[in-house]
Amino acid sequence: MSSLDITRLDTGSAEFDQKLHQKIAWDDSIDPKVQETVREILDAVRTEGDAAVLRYTASLDRLDAASVSDLQVSRERLDRALDAIGADEREALEHAASRIRAYHEKQRPESWQYEEADGTRLGQRVLPVDRAGLYVPGGKAAYPSSVLMNAIPARVAGVSEVVMVVPAPDGELSDLVLAAAVIAGVDRIYTLGGAQAIAALAYGTETVPAVDKIVGPGNIFVAMAKREVFGIVGIDMVAGPSEILVVGDGTTDPDWIAMDLFSQAEHDEQAQSILVSPDADYLDRVHQSMEKLLPTMERAEIIRRSLEDRGMLIKVASLSEAADVSNRIAPEHLELSVADPDGLLAEIRHAGAIFMGSYTAEVLGDYCAGPNHVLPTGGTARFSSPLGVYDFQKRSSVIYFTGEGASQAGRTASVLARGEGLTAHARSAEYRLRS
Amino acid sequence: MSSLDITRLDTGSAEFDQKLHQKIAWDDSIDPKVQETVREILDAVRTEGDAAVLRYTASLDRLDAASVSDLQVSRERLDRALDAIGADEREALEHAASRIRAYHEKQRPESWQYEEADGTRLGQRVLPVDRAGLYVPGGKAAYPSSVLMNAIPARVAGVSEVVMVVPAPDGELSDLVLAAAVIAGVDRIYTLGGAQAIAALAYGTETVPAVDKIVGPGNIFVAMAKREVFGIVGIDMVAGPSEILVVGDGTTDPDWIAMDLFSQAEHDEQAQSILVSPDADYLDRVHQSMEKLLPTMERAEIIRRSLEDRGMLIKVASLSEAADVSNRIAPEHLELSVADPDGLLAEIRHAGAIFMGSYTAEVLGDYCAGPNHVLPTGGTARFSSPLGVYDFQKRSSVIYFTGEGASQAGRTASVLARGEGLTAHARSAEYRLRS
Repeated sequence: MSSLDITRLDTGSAEFDQKLHQKIAWDDSIDPKVQETVREILDAVRTEGDAAVLRYTASLDRLDAASVSDLQVSRERLDRALDAIGADEREALEHAASRIRAYHEKQRPESWQYEEADGTRLGQRVLPVDRAGLYVPGGKAAYPSSVLMNAIPARVAGVSEVVMVVPAPDGELSDLVLAAAVIAGVDRIYTLGGAQAIAALAYGTETVPAVDKIVGPGNIFVAMAKREVFGIVGIDMVAGPSEILVVGDGTTDPDWIAMDLFSQAEHDEQAQSILVSPDADYLDRVHQSMEKLLPTMERAEIIRRSLEDRGMLIKVASLSEAADVSNRIAPEHLELSVADPDGLLAEIRHAGAIFMGSYTAEVLGDYCAGPNHVLPTGGTARFSSPLGVYDFQKRSSVIYFTGEGASQAGRTASVLARGEGLTAHARSAEYRLRS
Repeated sequence: MSSLDITRLDTGSAEFDQKLHQKIAWDDSIDPKVQETVREILDAVRTEGDAAVLRYTASLDRLDAASVSDLQVSRERLDRALDAIGADEREALEHAASRIRAYHEKQRPESWQYEEADGTRLGQRVLPVDRAGLYVPGGKAAYPSSVLMNAIPARVAGVSEVVMVVPAPDGELSDLVLAAAVIAGVDRIYTLGGAQAIAALAYGTETVPAVDKIVGPGNIFVAMAKREVFGIVGIDMVAGPSEILVVGDGTTDPDWIAMDLFSQAEHDEQAQSILVSPDADYLDRVHQSMEKLLPTMERAEIIRRSLEDRGMLIKVASLSEAADVSNRIAPEHLELSVADPDGLLAEIRHAGAIFMGSYTAEVLGDYCAGPNHVLPTGGTARFSSPLGVYDFQKRSSVIYFTGEGASQAGRTASVLARGEGLTAHARSAEYRLRS
């Protein structure tokens, strides 16, 4: 059994606050060279359109094409992908898609309106964005689950067209990713990646239509490009490393918890796995499980690096204190692996997704529970939300005043406008006053 | 009568698309010197706290204080402000606040949960952010209406503490702004401004508490500082120049429309006022009204500059085409000043707020209709929404699987995880399978 050197903290220690702070700190400062490269690419695509897209795709993905239309994935290729995957994979994708769809349908906000006594009507109108763009990473990080999680909410929102881009370095494309796109209802797919794909979606080219919202994960160039085009189009949050925080009271088999922590850690070395418990023995037992199971893992080296660099086992005085620690961290994923998860939930204020009880492994949320797996990271759950149907919609206020209503409201508006020194505002209201 | 040189366009002209595009284009590129200054200030406040805040406040606002607590506005000062304003102003603020509150209360999303046949429960929990920060500009741009529009949605959302910052250059503070803060239910106010105020709210100092969300308008330094701290805290959208688009069929008195266009134009030279009509005579008559009324306006020079630089009178073939033009521009404010606004509304897809019929002057929305006056500008209404209660809340997904439910979902998760090469994910699900 190989030893695993994971940080132990105790809220009873005087240095706890400082050590916790150090351990959760994450440097997301931007490399100016990346920024410069990305700005160059964005600028080229904005001014040259298809020509620049083809040039970067040839040089960066080693994919030559005579035109951008040639990079659109054909119906035949999609059918081939559906045939190529296993029957169990097809069934799993469809099962996941139907659960994700069902959950997101509950999320759809409705337009509303109310009328006042004098006939004044006030309302809020909710409409989908016209067109959404979905970035899907290629190569090793080609995740069909990510296609489902990003495309289905757009479809449920009523977006007219969902355009997907996925790089195909050396022409390589994942059948599972293509199959997921068909099942999720994506309208068209271009084999484009990197900042050039984001630029094409944001500005539009002769071939790629400009979209109103871009979602989906990507490498540092993609993330930077999304930041840069924000304002021209909407974007989802730029995600940091993935995190899980498990609160355990000893109810759940230590092997299960060890594997839940591994499932975050295997993403990459920067991922963060934290176990919080009032039971020191339980922390020991989970630690032993991790040492026992680690050598059996395919991604053992990534898991070890992640756990030794960023993992924590935190001893608290009580489950309430565990909730406090969790609220300070505002984790992306929170497992309440305790006997009474509903009781503890009442004390939780900030988390992207909350997994209740021993059976609700976080991994179920990654694939098929129904809720979205695109979640706020790095403490941003304090103020932001899972990706949802609402991200593909926007609201407009609707205001209708009768003559009588406009006269009453106009008096108030006139006083306030004059108080602010805005006399055109005041006179615009005063024209509508009744004596 | 002075002539007013305002651009005339006609959708029937071959150059229409290009000319429209030129006229709505807006350069929001960032001055690197501003960025550098802002980063310096943010860095100083982050590392030095109160000391840096005091230093910048002394040098930039000429306001000396021994401590940041001395910059907190006292209860006595607030009471004095309430006494100092006129009874009509007090009444107008209270009338506006109560209408804004009533509208925003309808906007509050509810948590929900549903249960499946095997006992699996899925839900979405909606909670307020813990603490919100509200930036209010000082000096000439001190708008009490802005205090109401930013603070009331936070209060309705259930935010525990609303902290306001407002610069007091040379100690000068607006009684109307302070009175509005009391009426809106702001918890504490510091006389701080600029990037140093944003830094204090984002990072917290010994005295100013860190907040989770920062909202409110400000100058270029404030806007840049908000962009920079985004990710550490949430921010509202960074607003561009204000715009109005009026669709008129000839129903409304030309003087009224002229004044509605002036009311945007008087904000600043960059504001944009557009009238769209199928009736060329009506465009002429509104143009004549503008020429007649312009000399009577207190801000005539700003209005003229705005209208001559950025204003447009657009002739369309039909009201449907007017809706198309409006959808392309996606204006912040849209007046449907027509006989049948409900009929036309069905064709509108993108606008921040929509004002229906002759009596519903846009100015009523600025102050007291009820809906928010913080709206998406520069075409961002294609994908973003008015400021609302939802901006001060965040959602968490809640997932509870029974043993039976986890076993079923686990099979799907296991297949998909193995398809993605994530075996710790797969094994975490497989532990929970029942044979």
